[in-house]
Amino acid sequence: MSYRLYYWPSVQGRGEFVRLALEESAAGYVDVARESGKGLGVPALMKLMDARRVEHAPFAPPFLQSGRLIVAQTANILLYLGPRHGLAPKNEAGRLWVHQLQLTIADFVAEVHDTHHPVAASLYYEDQKPEARRRAADFRQRRVPKYLGYFEQLLGRERRGKYLTGAKPTYVDLSLFQIMAGLHYAFPRAMAVARRRYKRLAALSESVQARPRINDYLASERRIPFNEDGIFRHYPELDESSTG
Amino acid sequence: MSYRLYYWPSVQGRGEFVRLALEESAAGYVDVARESGKGLGVPALMKLMDARRVEHAPFAPPFLQSGRLIVAQTANILLYLGPRHGLAPKNEAGRLWVHQLQLTIADFVAEVHDTHHPVAASLYYEDQKPEARRRAADFRQRRVPKYLGYFEQLLGRERRGKYLTGAKPTYVDLSLFQIMAGLHYAFPRAMAVARRRYKRLAALSESVQARPRINDYLASERRIPFNEDGIFRHYPELDESSTG
Repeated sequence: MSYRLYYWPSVQGRGEFVRLALEESAAGYVDVARESGKGLGVPALMKLMDARRVEHAPFAPPFLQSGRLIVAQTANILLYLGPRHGLAPKNEAGRLWVHQLQLTIADFVAEVHDTHHPVAASLYYEDQKPEARRRAADFRQRRVPKYLGYFEQLLGRERRGKYLTGAKPTYVDLSLFQIMAGLHYAFPRAMAVARRRYKRLAALSESVQARPRINDYLASERRIPFNEDGIFRHYPELDESSTG
Repeated sequence: MSYRLYYWPSVQGRGEFVRLALEESAAGYVDVARESGKGLGVPALMKLMDARRVEHAPFAPPFLQSGRLIVAQTANILLYLGPRHGLAPKNEAGRLWVHQLQLTIADFVAEVHDTHHPVAASLYYEDQKPEARRRAADFRQRRVPKYLGYFEQLLGRERRGKYLTGAKPTYVDLSLFQIMAGLHYAFPRAMAVARRRYKRLAALSESVQARPRINDYLASERRIPFNEDGIFRHYPELDESSTG
């Protein structure tokens, strides 16, 4: 069974949460927009988004094709993949719980994006820098502690294993690794301090990174480096000032 | 079977998408934070959000209690309720599709909120008015046409009934009604023009509003009026200017 993943070819973005799940489960997949040839590339992605012609056309990437099924929205794709590849609990209550956490991560990711685009996604960062500085300060001072503090507290509850729901990772653990990696890239000064406050999240992140398939993936060319076109962008002026 | 819904007592907010589904399905529910007495009120809501003490503590309201299960995140609650009350397709592909649309609506709702809070949810609107004007202009000019245009196109595809997936409404139809009602409240001038462009959405919205249980609900005291503490706020300076 080979999946087709559709996402923008030059950024990790929201697609990365799906890539990590596909890589960990060793599910074969074609990263469609990063390939060229017939039925591949960005045109293949655009074609499926035409709601006048395509039944169940997605509003935006990422989306996943599995046989005749097309599933969009990052958390919805993971909801679909999770139970098929041992990356979600088997019972309904467990599945709803990890999906709920993934949706909380999705909210956080949208806030990360808006640190550099608080006015409009259609404008350049350079056209909204004063607003971005204000929003990023609130993000670092209030939103990061609120979200990371929540997950840190969940990890502090009595557990049977090193992952959020036990000894085996779910797609939420993979996503939390990506969140921590992205925050370290975008806000290195703020995270150097925060790291000490979120020890369990840091340990979880290291456990994910050390998994053989994830480790192989991160060292491969399939992992697109962080860059300033993605969600996590490193603009030093949005990070904590070096004087505190 | 009676549900307990937990949401802030004085706004429609994200809780309203759940209320509409509960009302249409005639499922009994207690709107916990709006009642007073033992185990009720806002303290009961706060208590369940303590991640140090409560297993599966939600990050934020709304959340729904069903027996021993607690489900949070608006779209996740609807994912749970939909198939139980005939408000979602029965097969997996159909369920994933309506959930995907609900998640797209959730993204839109977050953008609606940020029109009046582009800098920080922790600040008053009065402290971010210039930024709000810029963001609201982009929202009206680019984001509303993108989202409503998408749903209008989906509605334009050959259908068997007056709702998005056929003759019976799903929770997505109820949510689209709420979106249209909220936009009309918040941006009456912009929507007076847009209404002509989104005829199918307007018709869908009227069909939902005319459903007996929804109609009863909207006329009852259970429906909190729109107000300037919620997601959809009417600030005339964020609407289209009367001169165009």
